[in-house]
Amino acid sequence: MEALKQRILSDGRCLNGGILKVDNFLNHQIDPKLMQAIGEEFVRRFSDVKVDKVITVEASGIAPALFVALQLGTDLVFAKKKNPSTMESPLSARITSFTKGCDCDICISGNFLKRGEKVLFIDDFLANGSVSLGIRDIVSQAGAELVGMGFVIEKSFQSGAALLAQCGVRTESLVRIASLENCQIVFAE
Amino acid sequence: MEALKQRILSDGRCLNGGILKVDNFLNHQIDPKLMQAIGEEFVRRFSDVKVDKVITVEASGIAPALFVALQLGTDLVFAKKKNPSTMESPLSARITSFTKGCDCDICISGNFLKRGEKVLFIDDFLANGSVSLGIRDIVSQAGAELVGMGFVIEKSFQSGAALLAQCGVRTESLVRIASLENCQIVFAE
Repeated sequence: MEALKQRILSDGRCLNGGILKVDNFLNHQIDPKLMQAIGEEFVRRFSDVKVDKVITVEASGIAPALFVALQLGTDLVFAKKKNPSTMESPLSARITSFTKGCDCDICISGNFLKRGEKVLFIDDFLANGSVSLGIRDIVSQAGAELVGMGFVIEKSFQSGAALLAQCGVRTESLVRIASLENCQIVFAE
Repeated sequence: MEALKQRILSDGRCLNGGILKVDNFLNHQIDPKLMQAIGEEFVRRFSDVKVDKVITVEASGIAPALFVALQLGTDLVFAKKKNPSTMESPLSARITSFTKGCDCDICISGNFLKRGEKVLFIDDFLANGSVSLGIRDIVSQAGAELVGMGFVIEKSFQSGAALLAQCGVRTESLVRIASLENCQIVFAE
């Protein structure tokens, strides 16, 4: 997605440790028009699959996923990073956060993920795949069907893309980054 | 907002302790079309003020606020509920969460809130006003100008609305709930 590449080049910044900081249009400050275009691109790429529900993880996944769900005419469910006391029938998985360096649980209420539902997962980043594998686990617990996973930015130099491919999960990444070495952003072909 | 009232009556549920559970269209599962309509209604109500930036708090505020920002043509900034190690120039305030029963900090990077900017705050609930007063504090720290606050649901039987009125903050609530006593949803006139 060329507009996204250009935005990453103009506004993204590398931090030490392979972190790409895009907090001025995706992770903290959000550009709604870009999110809308990102939603359209995901819908185009997954136009061959039926989707009953879009899911994401709070908080940065909500904006792009919301536009996907709007255009598909489905509801959006966002996984919570801890189990609120009022959540009914929680389904959960343990994940390791790359940027936060800690383990935590992600949870979705079983009320909102039904057996046989066709689920599309959308998130901002694919890095080590921990969140994605956790979501795959939760979808499986519910007996729902994961039809695909879409990522705004894939860090192809980390293990997530390969892990998901091994699991047979279809993924679509709008931009793939081959390297952030020496704080240079190098896109994959 | 009549469509929202009807949705609360059909899908909302009362829990003990004055909690209104709307996790099937607002707080966990999200109805994107309803969020879009909510965004349009906020834009209509605040059509007399200039807005440079929309702000909200993660995670449930993001969906309605995103549609407000999209329609106004501004960026959206969401306050984070803890201070990520990579946040630059953090501005923060201590809040007390009504539903979680704990104190925590909300933070916005000073990079995204500038002196003189006209800021509209959008959130899902107005209850005791702790989050709203924290946001007012952060906006003040940045030297920005708070032009108004919009809430999807106001619990008029809690103190937030009165506190904000005392501070001279203009508020718009799409639905106002007078009472949840005996688990009956009673709307304010």
